[in-house]
Amino acid sequence: MKVVNDLVGYKNLKIIQETEWFNFSLESVLLPRFVSLNMKHKKIIDFCTGNGPIPLILSTRTVEKINAIEIQRDVFKLARESLEINNLSNQIKLINDSIENLGEYFPVNYFDVITCNPPYFKVSEESKVNLDEHKKIARHEIKTNLEQIIAIATRFLNNNGIIAISHRADRLSDLIEIFRKHNLEPKKLQFLHPKDGKKANIVLIEAKKTKNKGIEILSPIIVHNEDGSYTDKIKSFFINEK
Amino acid sequence: MKVVNDLVGYKNLKIIQETEWFNFSLESVLLPRFVSLNMKHKKIIDFCTGNGPIPLILSTRTVEKINAIEIQRDVFKLARESLEINNLSNQIKLINDSIENLGEYFPVNYFDVITCNPPYFKVSEESKVNLDEHKKIARHEIKTNLEQIIAIATRFLNNNGIIAISHRADRLSDLIEIFRKHNLEPKKLQFLHPKDGKKANIVLIEAKKTKNKGIEILSPIIVHNEDGSYTDKIKSFFINEK
Repeated sequence: MKVVNDLVGYKNLKIIQETEWFNFSLESVLLPRFVSLNMKHKKIIDFCTGNGPIPLILSTRTVEKINAIEIQRDVFKLARESLEINNLSNQIKLINDSIENLGEYFPVNYFDVITCNPPYFKVSEESKVNLDEHKKIARHEIKTNLEQIIAIATRFLNNNGIIAISHRADRLSDLIEIFRKHNLEPKKLQFLHPKDGKKANIVLIEAKKTKNKGIEILSPIIVHNEDGSYTDKIKSFFINEK
Repeated sequence: MKVVNDLVGYKNLKIIQETEWFNFSLESVLLPRFVSLNMKHKKIIDFCTGNGPIPLILSTRTVEKINAIEIQRDVFKLARESLEINNLSNQIKLINDSIENLGEYFPVNYFDVITCNPPYFKVSEESKVNLDEHKKIARHEIKTNLEQIIAIATRFLNNNGIIAISHRADRLSDLIEIFRKHNLEPKKLQFLHPKDGKKANIVLIEAKKTKNKGIEILSPIIVHNEDGSYTDKIKSFFINEK
């Protein structure tokens, strides 16, 4: 069933969801807040955009055009409808294609900022779960994988361009190793812990096309209180937004 | 001036310090608590042991013999005195040598556990500071460096052996990249943040000689309250110890 929801925390933003498929995740709301955006960042794209939560939220932080690319036709249509009901079809440009074909739309060394909340689970773990085709593609590394994403990103980033990715915290070493292999230096890191005292489950990481080494580890985000409610920190993100 | 202090938090442990040289750091007290120690860990060594805080604290967690190696003669002598006043000369065996000569004392693939709170600052940053010779060697990567330490460690660790290191948080990517280059897989990570909301300054990281991937990100340690006093978490580490 297709439904129109408020985009959590953003009173004036709506998002179209297909309840039988999947909903946007907390990290797809936090990543567009985490990524460094400044006045010099004019060329922006979101990879694997899904139903579009990241470009929708980025639109509250920049007046520049935002590109977003999604491979699945049905999911792309949801994103397009979300843009329309938010009157953002002018600022956000959607592409229905694989990031492997990005060269058909943009030159190399073009982007200042890339965001990506990519498929999370390794294909080898797939046997443990039983999801329908849409969830499978969105959450598993089937149509793409982490190294492919980062290899494509570095090709299309200009010098000093940045990429911000959310991923499973236990894959931190893979992220750092693959970034460096592709000449991207990890510069900023923030962990999400489901509760105080618990191990991190999600990492937000930003890397830059630069040779300057050194990373900042931000204060972590604790998501839930002991009773399961959202922490004040999480709530503070979602109040008085556009 | 040479003084005898309580080893912070360990009522029954004393440590000899030379006040004009350097004191042990918070991470040299936290690292021996962080490292995974179990009944199967029988061969243990602390690299760059300084005046010996790490083996002293490890002695509260294991009945096995603990080895410790320190290159500087004067600092080694302080550590030896600390062992004597704590009656730990039987359990802790000190070596006054460079870790480069470790092969003269032990066979390769020998150790189950290596700890190291190594020299922290890059030599290139040395010009910014003006320290006497002892501080220079202890805090700068002059006589050894991170990659040398890790290369030696992997050579002397047996399969599934572990190494726990404390280091500057901004060098996380170097740590992970160098560990993997030397066939050590980062398995456990914990950050120290000087205050709540501040960036991490220190990382504690444990790697294992294994091919199994995946890392655990522990809940971070916040060191100071807003008023500069130690947090309850830090205090809880230092109460009711041996």
